[in-house]
Amino acid sequence: MPGSAIDHLIQLLGRLPGLGPRSARRVALDLLRHREQRLVPLMRALEDASENVRECGICGNLDLCDPCGICADPKRDQSILCVVEDVADLWALERARIFCGHYHVLGGVLSALDGVGPEDLRIAKLVERAADPQLQEIVLAMNATVDGQTTAHYISDRLKGSALTLSRLAHGVPVGGELDYLDDGTLGTALKARRPL
Amino acid sequence: MPGSAIDHLIQLLGRLPGLGPRSARRVALDLLRHREQRLVPLMRALEDASENVRECGICGNLDLCDPCGICADPKRDQSILCVVEDVADLWALERARIFCGHYHVLGGVLSALDGVGPEDLRIAKLVERAADPQLQEIVLAMNATVDGQTTAHYISDRLKGSALTLSRLAHGVPVGGELDYLDDGTLGTALKARRPL
Repeated sequence: MPGSAIDHLIQLLGRLPGLGPRSARRVALDLLRHREQRLVPLMRALEDASENVRECGICGNLDLCDPCGICADPKRDQSILCVVEDVADLWALERARIFCGHYHVLGGVLSALDGVGPEDLRIAKLVERAADPQLQEIVLAMNATVDGQTTAHYISDRLKGSALTLSRLAHGVPVGGELDYLDDGTLGTALKARRPL
Repeated sequence: MPGSAIDHLIQLLGRLPGLGPRSARRVALDLLRHREQRLVPLMRALEDASENVRECGICGNLDLCDPCGICADPKRDQSILCVVEDVADLWALERARIFCGHYHVLGGVLSALDGVGPEDLRIAKLVERAADPQLQEIVLAMNATVDGQTTAHYISDRLKGSALTLSRLAHGVPVGGELDYLDDGTLGTALKARRPL
């Protein structure tokens, strides 16, 4: 049986998302086998991240500075704000290089089941940012799940009465997707929202 | 885009076995979100493992002491030695609690393709241990792969002439396995090695 320090490492690795006991053992062994090339650099990177990464006080993004690089960038479009559930969604949009406005990370979605209410998300801060006179449009880019859409609905209610344009991402057939493999909901939405050629 | 410290962390995580770029991002975000509960304990566990885990000079197992807990345990059967490819295999046998002899970890298998020769494995040390007068049997518990079986064959050649009993694990239908899902090789071996009821 592995020594307690190894057991402890495996246990901690096994709690990470996507890793089970077997993959945690594989990762631990790999780290211990390549101590100089893998374990020590990872240890230093964790230390570095732990000390230097902070949450942006404006948008909720993770970065080395606060305000984050995106909020501080003067070349970004001040008139459009994209609201996302999570930092991972922000990163996905940034990787796609398709949006040059600002972001607002909610930090989750409303969920009665999980006991997540509006005060647990960064919604008050969003309402505050929405009062910025430079802002013209807010894109509610929540996931197309029930909780995501409920949250979008709640936010649009809270922002009612402001002169802002509210929008959401289009639903439809994913690019490269095959009709045969799509669920009925997506197919129905794509047909209803058909566009003239 | 995430800051460079985050990027670096994601890159290092993505090099671990079983993690790709997407799962590395998920793990990094999870670590950064639960800094006190996940990131810091993992950092400390890595530090602890890096400082304290060592390879046993006798069997090649990883443990906090050298010789390892298994080699040092006087209650273990001195007459039987189980040769495995990897520390993970040793751990698997220990988890099953079915073997109470000693182990010898080769650290890999012979592979002409990957350029692994006998001198890259702990075979010389095994031959040395085989001379122990207390030892009566060596179980060659290599994986049932071509390279594993080649290695077992090579070792049995090297140990030829000694009075030791050499054995290997039985091949057959895995417990709980369904015949319909088994490959022809396993099915054939299981039939040939059938046992009287």
